[in-house]
Amino acid sequence: MNYGREILREVEGYVPGEQPKQAGIIKLNTNENPYPPSPSVGETLRKLTPDAMRKYPDPVSLELREACAQRYGYENADWCIAGNGMDELLALAVRTFVDPGDTILTPYPTYTLYETLAQLHGADVNMIDLDDQFQLPERFFNTPARLCFLPRPNAPTGVSAPRGDVERLCSEFEGIVVIDEAYVDFGADNCMDFPKKFENAIVMRTFSKSFSLAGMRVGLAVAQPEIIAEFLKTKDSYNLNAYSQAAALAAIRAYAHMEANAAKIRSTRQRLGAALEDLGFTVPPSQANFLLAQWNGTPSAKEIFLALKDRGIFVRYFDARRLENALRITVGTDEETDALLDALREIVAR
Amino acid sequence: MNYGREILREVEGYVPGEQPKQAGIIKLNTNENPYPPSPSVGETLRKLTPDAMRKYPDPVSLELREACAQRYGYENADWCIAGNGMDELLALAVRTFVDPGDTILTPYPTYTLYETLAQLHGADVNMIDLDDQFQLPERFFNTPARLCFLPRPNAPTGVSAPRGDVERLCSEFEGIVVIDEAYVDFGADNCMDFPKKFENAIVMRTFSKSFSLAGMRVGLAVAQPEIIAEFLKTKDSYNLNAYSQAAALAAIRAYAHMEANAAKIRSTRQRLGAALEDLGFTVPPSQANFLLAQWNGTPSAKEIFLALKDRGIFVRYFDARRLENALRITVGTDEETDALLDALREIVAR
Repeated sequence: MNYGREILREVEGYVPGEQPKQAGIIKLNTNENPYPPSPSVGETLRKLTPDAMRKYPDPVSLELREACAQRYGYENADWCIAGNGMDELLALAVRTFVDPGDTILTPYPTYTLYETLAQLHGADVNMIDLDDQFQLPERFFNTPARLCFLPRPNAPTGVSAPRGDVERLCSEFEGIVVIDEAYVDFGADNCMDFPKKFENAIVMRTFSKSFSLAGMRVGLAVAQPEIIAEFLKTKDSYNLNAYSQAAALAAIRAYAHMEANAAKIRSTRQRLGAALEDLGFTVPPSQANFLLAQWNGTPSAKEIFLALKDRGIFVRYFDARRLENALRITVGTDEETDALLDALREIVAR
Repeated sequence: MNYGREILREVEGYVPGEQPKQAGIIKLNTNENPYPPSPSVGETLRKLTPDAMRKYPDPVSLELREACAQRYGYENADWCIAGNGMDELLALAVRTFVDPGDTILTPYPTYTLYETLAQLHGADVNMIDLDDQFQLPERFFNTPARLCFLPRPNAPTGVSAPRGDVERLCSEFEGIVVIDEAYVDFGADNCMDFPKKFENAIVMRTFSKSFSLAGMRVGLAVAQPEIIAEFLKTKDSYNLNAYSQAAALAAIRAYAHMEANAAKIRSTRQRLGAALEDLGFTVPPSQANFLLAQWNGTPSAKEIFLALKDRGIFVRYFDARRLENALRITVGTDEETDALLDALREIVAR
């Protein structure tokens, strides 16, 4: 096959977490919300007529963007764009603001998709190591690049940079700053106001985590209207289907349901973190719906990962520098958490 | 705003047909199917549980791809990829097989999205004029390019190149040939078997037209497994949501429903074409669910378009070379067709 592009030869593509199909497993590996979305979401979808399937959807998701603008304190839909999952918006950010050969700045470790997106575009990535506390080091603020991906909270660490650091970055960095707030509803604060102050700030959100809609693929980007206008040029014409638009709209209107679920998860996260530390794990302070459980003992983190899998409990293991001695564990229900802790007690006490 | 890419400065993006919201209008402007999808599609969606929303969808749409492979005579899912509408797959074809600066070959006139996709990627487009019958001229077969978009039937003409021409193109053209079969279920034959014979052939289909699922955004590409593997690298990780996968799967299983709708549309197309010719329009032979109605009289085609719009009947007018004296009219129901013809009789007889 001699048709592919040279730059894609070595690219493997992003590898999503496993989606095992067997029943009865405990799935703590892809940071899904363990609680269902608001019942109003399902009711909304059940009420859609065949015309919602038959006709093209609104190409620019106007009603959803208006509802999001209102919810997040923005004047109108010109400040928002909806995407086919935040993944689409992250990819669009690269294609809209980065030329092939340019450099993208990211912390390390972080969400591996950023690097994949850069590779697919023929852009370089400058990954700057986070410090021992997984915080941004000084040189992150004065490294030039066309665009910076800053996840807050970060994945897979769960750690949030101080708001002041993000503010400083937006102010000093000369390119676009994408503040990836996929997990922010589980955290203590957010940067949703930054696009008002900084013309280079783009805040991204997803409906996959706190709104329990991973299956519907809806993401949101908030930025100044000039930025959004560029995104609207580069997105696919009808990027969001009718069901996804309707589901996300119902979900943002049922905001209190999301907040209640997020509060339950924060509470379980606290309990899980304390129990993991009792077992000998080191757990960086997480503002997300997952914990990075660091482990230097015997059996190894990878062995623990496999032993959990044998018991039908899926967590995430990354065979990567600074992560090889750690597991990323999604915060599930209380029952799932109890089952996980019981299994871990068996495995690490052997 | 100084953050955008130079190559995007002059890009306007693809402009979809109008999606008017008022009730009671007759919408013959975006080539939607006037008939609803199989009832089994709606039933399938209503049966989905909240888990379909809460959990990530299958990232590679395996069940849907297997069903499509089986339907279209291919060994297994390795020959297919599903996309968020065919639009995503067309964009992926450019990003996967064309380097910025390379040339893309298309006929003219044709689907304007091809040119937009090339611009967004920084690729050049070589548009070669179709002949008087809207067929491929000799030089189309010996013009070098990295990739060729060949819609069959073509839009907005409705005309299909002979299968032999497509075969010759796949055989002689040195790059990738994307055979865009968005409308092929309304035609007499198709090229779905070509990927078996030609390693550079990619056949694309959509569920938007014949399957009445424009609102769900599902497209399909069929090609040799080496080609599909490249697409899988470049697509978004979870490009198709759970509802779209389920809807398309139900639709492909209800294939006879689609065929019956397509037969009705072919029959109405024949009647509409004859009536338009009686009114003085010239109508190239259409194999699609729309007709290009060419008009050289008074009032002008644009005036007819506007007069129809005043009456609540939306058709498509393209202010472009070789199309300024024509309307593209979607084949609707028999009732819609009668209303259109009544209105046209009034307008062109004034």
